[in-house]
Amino acid sequence: MVNWTDLTFEDFKKLNRDNVLVILPVGSIEEHGPHLPLSSDTDQAIFVANKISEKIESVILPSIYYGNTDLDDFEGTITVSFDTLRSLIYDILLSVIKWKFTKILIISGHAGSIHMAAIRDAAIKIVRENTVKIMFLSDYDIAYELRGNLVPENDSHAGLIETSRMMAIRPDLVKKDTKFLFHGKGKYMIIDNYSSIYPYGTLSDPSGATRELGEKVNEYIMEKLIKLIKENFSL
Amino acid sequence: MVNWTDLTFEDFKKLNRDNVLVILPVGSIEEHGPHLPLSSDTDQAIFVANKISEKIESVILPSIYYGNTDLDDFEGTITVSFDTLRSLIYDILLSVIKWKFTKILIISGHAGSIHMAAIRDAAIKIVRENTVKIMFLSDYDIAYELRGNLVPENDSHAGLIETSRMMAIRPDLVKKDTKFLFHGKGKYMIIDNYSSIYPYGTLSDPSGATRELGEKVNEYIMEKLIKLIKENFSL
Amino acid sequence: MVNWTDLTFEDFKKLNRDNVLVILPVGSIEEHGPHLPLSSDTDQAIFVANKISEKIESVILPSIYYGNTDLDDFEGTITVSFDTLRSLIYDILLSVIKWKFTKILIISGHAGSIHMAAIRDAAIKIVRENTVKIMFLSDYDIAYELRGNLVPENDSHAGLIETSRMMAIRPDLVKKDTKFLFHGKGKYMIIDNYSSIYPYGTLSDPSGATRELGEKVNEYIMEKLIKLIKENFSL
Amino acid sequence: MVNWTDLTFEDFKKLNRDNVLVILPVGSIEEHGPHLPLSSDTDQAIFVANKISEKIESVILPSIYYGNTDLDDFEGTITVSFDTLRSLIYDILLSVIKWKFTKILIISGHAGSIHMAAIRDAAIKIVRENTVKIMFLSDYDIAYELRGNLVPENDSHAGLIETSRMMAIRPDLVKKDTKFLFHGKGKYMIIDNYSSIYPYGTLSDPSGATRELGEKVNEYIMEKLIKLIKENFSL
Amino acid sequence: MVNWTDLTFEDFKKLNRDNVLVILPVGSIEEHGPHLPLSSDTDQAIFVANKISEKIESVILPSIYYGNTDLDDFEGTITVSFDTLRSLIYDILLSVIKWKFTKILIISGHAGSIHMAAIRDAAIKIVRENTVKIMFLSDYDIAYELRGNLVPENDSHAGLIETSRMMAIRPDLVKKDTKFLFHGKGKYMIIDNYSSIYPYGTLSDPSGATRELGEKVNEYIMEKLIKLIKENFSL
Amino acid sequence: MVNWTDLTFEDFKKLNRDNVLVILPVGSIEEHGPHLPLSSDTDQAIFVANKISEKIESVILPSIYYGNTDLDDFEGTITVSFDTLRSLIYDILLSVIKWKFTKILIISGHAGSIHMAAIRDAAIKIVRENTVKIMFLSDYDIAYELRGNLVPENDSHAGLIETSRMMAIRPDLVKKDTKFLFHGKGKYMIIDNYSSIYPYGTLSDPSGATRELGEKVNEYIMEKLIKLIKENFSL
Repeated sequence: MVNWTDLTFEDFKKLNRDNVLVILPVGSIEEHGPHLPLSSDTDQAIFVANKISEKIESVILPSIYYGNTDLDDFEGTITVSFDTLRSLIYDILLSVIKWKFTKILIISGHAGSIHMAAIRDAAIKIVRENTVKIMFLSDYDIAYELRGNLVPENDSHAGLIETSRMMAIRPDLVKKDTKFLFHGKGKYMIIDNYSSIYPYGTLSDPSGATRELGEKVNEYIMEKLIKLIKENFSL
Repeated sequence: MVNWTDLTFEDFKKLNRDNVLVILPVGSIEEHGPHLPLSSDTDQAIFVANKISEKIESVILPSIYYGNTDLDDFEGTITVSFDTLRSLIYDILLSVIKWKFTKILIISGHAGSIHMAAIRDAAIKIVRENTVKIMFLSDYDIAYELRGNLVPENDSHAGLIETSRMMAIRPDLVKKDTKFLFHGKGKYMIIDNYSSIYPYGTLSDPSGATRELGEKVNEYIMEKLIKLIKENFSL
Repeated sequence: MVNWTDLTFEDFKKLNRDNVLVILPVGSIEEHGPHLPLSSDTDQAIFVANKISEKIESVILPSIYYGNTDLDDFEGTITVSFDTLRSLIYDILLSVIKWKFTKILIISGHAGSIHMAAIRDAAIKIVRENTVKIMFLSDYDIAYELRGNLVPENDSHAGLIETSRMMAIRPDLVKKDTKFLFHGKGKYMIIDNYSSIYPYGTLSDPSGATRELGEKVNEYIMEKLIKLIKENFSL
Repeated sequence: MVNWTDLTFEDFKKLNRDNVLVILPVGSIEEHGPHLPLSSDTDQAIFVANKISEKIESVILPSIYYGNTDLDDFEGTITVSFDTLRSLIYDILLSVIKWKFTKILIISGHAGSIHMAAIRDAAIKIVRENTVKIMFLSDYDIAYELRGNLVPENDSHAGLIETSRMMAIRPDLVKKDTKFLFHGKGKYMIIDNYSSIYPYGTLSDPSGATRELGEKVNEYIMEKLIKLIKENFSL
Repeated sequence: MVNWTDLTFEDFKKLNRDNVLVILPVGSIEEHGPHLPLSSDTDQAIFVANKISEKIESVILPSIYYGNTDLDDFEGTITVSFDTLRSLIYDILLSVIKWKFTKILIISGHAGSIHMAAIRDAAIKIVRENTVKIMFLSDYDIAYELRGNLVPENDSHAGLIETSRMMAIRPDLVKKDTKFLFHGKGKYMIIDNYSSIYPYGTLSDPSGATRELGEKVNEYIMEKLIKLIKENFSL
Repeated sequence: MVNWTDLTFEDFKKLNRDNVLVILPVGSIEEHGPHLPLSSDTDQAIFVANKISEKIESVILPSIYYGNTDLDDFEGTITVSFDTLRSLIYDILLSVIKWKFTKILIISGHAGSIHMAAIRDAAIKIVRENTVKIMFLSDYDIAYELRGNLVPENDSHAGLIETSRMMAIRPDLVKKDTKFLFHGKGKYMIIDNYSSIYPYGTLSDPSGATRELGEKVNEYIMEKLIKLIKENFSL
């Protein structure tokens, strides 16, 4: 594994470009219930990036903590606008392709629809203007394939999978206190006060989460993801 | 010291707001000669933030690696535009003041004029629209007071002070290889290929740098900075 | 049913505001295989809007044909940028709330992720700044609940549901010629030439589509949607 | 006449490009006195587009109802900003020229100066960057040549010509009630409350309007316009 | 007459605000045939501003030379974009109203439609957000009332009126060489190479221009304008 | 010396392009104590531009009075945003290089950090996209080399140098009344009310200023500047 920023510019010149994957981990600073840290999404993205680099020759960029989220009526949550996130991703990608990398993975631990669209909108512009391959997904695109199987159909934000994964990834930051309450209602409504709908910040019940489950999910994600990376990037 | 993102939103509610300094470290991903890592500016900002938190009750935000720099014809350098950086800082500050903090320090390890103006332009907008105190500087605003005294008048980018500081802060990332060549010329010209002017990426001679000098400079910065923080924020 | 634009400004003054739903139909101009017109998404949104107005007192705004789509390497497809679509929706909503309506439904026949995020980003800004309720969804959010049940799990763009619905809604514009070919591959890749992946513009097999199926799906959508509208808007 | 959106993408491939005029009708949703519908400007643009297509081989784009107007203190009027309108027109034109059309007419039923400048600013950018001919005018640029001749010198918004034309084009939407009052004053002033100057939304007296006059004006416009199109586009 | 910028900030404090007109002269740097300087539009705006200040208590802002024009394929012509001009006017007006002036005249010697719309769009925003009166016109809005009377109907850019006025205002900058050629054609077309239509940059014949005619036109403008100012601003 | 705008477009065609310096003087409208006019920065930039043209073949553009400044709580100060200033400079430079000039000097009499960054950000974009040399500085970059020598170390805004220079350049606009008071404090703080820190708008003591000192400083600036111009532009 190589951290992009640990290198000097002279080291950098010697880097292989063609058979290397550049990974940009993106997260958020978002409430994840009373039991998970605000960094949860970023922690998971960083974990996935590091795991990939064990199997695939990779250069990892500094992770972006500052994502876009609508859960910003929960204390400590920080959100940046669609435009800010898109510009940030776009500018970073511009520099990455300037240095001749052609295989880029953006892995987002956060999967909000505006957040994802901001990154996608930046990436599509880069792809249209350059010869480069970009893969972009949230690890939750894969993790939630397990819904209805390993976990209930409705498992969601700060729920069983997410809590279990965090127990495996950053056990030092996970608390026991897993409250859950969901008032339902409001489907398809544009909402700016989610704390009125799920006051504990958990969208599904996290009780029952275990480190073992987290490891199983992480393995599932990694197996699928490594396969996709190899296929799509010929790595 | 408290990392903002280590907290849950419930932890966050209990945070003191009035007598706490929120610190946002900002750096860059910029060439620093053949001997210093691309992360140098960010490393120094993070170091300063952590040092402050030993003396002043602080909450530290995730550091921003992605700054603006004109040295982008050196391999590995990443730059984001003025607009991107300004938006990012602005959005983060908006969230910080939403959570009722009123004492904010932005410490930038990078001191490029467009980079600094982007942060300043975001901060002045926040100050005009809200009741909040923001201090903003580069640690080099203080470090370079030592020019002509501890180090030569012309000490600069990746030179004696910077190399010495990095030897004290991140010795694991510092290399021995300190080349220096400066073709001079081009004063006040708008330049987009700095590698033609100082091909080794060092704007002054770093040879002679020592960990001891670095520690001395760091102490000088911290002493001055803590004093300024206490005065300006009544902390 | 009332078309907003059929009124004079004097008629308009007499309109009930409190118990009326303003409906903004949004679509796209996008390839839908060799058998469906470029207007398909818009046609379906208009159909839904009109059907709602039979059950709920409604004022219908002129529909927006110009949406955002990535399928723009198929002939005739027109796409507008995220920013354009967001601004358009935002400005329209500003005028709608200026005239004191508080219950707004945006129904999009197109469900692309950037398209949806653009509308959502406009709507969330309006909701944050005003006292108004906005419901926003694609009719396909509901229609695809039928996947794995009435239609195969993988039913998608220009497939069985969409073709059947168009046979029920605009039979005059539906052609018999339903080709389907999907090269698979490219999952999670940022793609700017979808015609290389599904050359006929159909993402699932439309053969077997019938008007009866279309009517059944339309009824399913309307039943669910009317219920949601009544609940969320107390109408 | 061909509606762009009635086609499938396969139909579209067969379209002649060189000797075909693409027509984009643009209007507004604007008060037009107590006797004319908010759609008046758009209705007239659509009428003109359809009439042209009887004489010239044309493909007609979906009309844009959402224009820019300063009369937005009259109930029901909807305005979009200069920027929104310009972006919308620009993006649409980008797609039109992507599909190799080189002869485009933008016909606006609304003639407000900011509205017209927004469209013009988009079109000039397209013309500078591409090889394409764009004609852009309001039908009122031609209709008002009849001032001082067929109608009084001061005939204007919602007055004799406009009312007569609407009687010929959309008689179902025209009401008898033609009030007129103009307080004068305010010449060259920047005004944001036009209802204080002409409370009935009519800028000149519409009484005396007839369907016959409307037809005569429409014929005059069409004759002039067809001639201009043929000359300028060699069609 | 008072030049805004001649004052110290202490002088400024003593300025009357209520019965004073702030004048912002706007021009362009645009070809005006082989006989008139690029500054012509600005010269005329400055002249008018100064003349007003002889009759009305005024504070004159530094004039803006940098306007928007489409004639930018003639050598030396400088154009700024709609957005730049609008922002510039907006920011200046913001400062003017900050200092409590409520009567503002923007007089533009240039009358291009995009140029005028940019200024208008800035001014309307200011008027909507503040309590201030803004008058905005081109002196040519008045001057061209003389078409068909003192000068031919088709008198236009760099023609009889404009040349005569410049002979009266800046005789030192007027040359004898008045060429005129107009290829006609292109009505309503979006044109980016006007030099192909009127190669000498004159849109109507300037021969026959005299200083006396210029003075007459100037007097006509001033009489009308002073009257309008007095009426609209109660000055 | 040639004023760009005094020329006709025909004169312009005959201009030498290769061995000519285009000069754009930029200033501000900013308080300069009770003794100096709001135009001080612009006056000095114009003076420098004119002086250069005595030694170097030059074409001088109309000067820009409207700069960016944070001192906008002093009466009469006008500020434009970073974005406005950057756009203005960028658009002007675009036109200048369109007319084939390759040697451009931007001389700013104002040296605020955001103001300077705005101009720099415009200029760097131009340099990256075109083959052109741009020199950009404030005359104060040179003048303040005299600090600690001809004037005290802390000489600053509206102080000894600036007052003396204005006595030499625009004696008609300089007043005797030189008050000075500086509350200190606030170093590195983001400040939006500078009048609370130096109520008289003078950042250092201007008493003792003389025309002779001003002339000496001006000569120093000109000597250095002419040398730099000759070196950098081979003029």
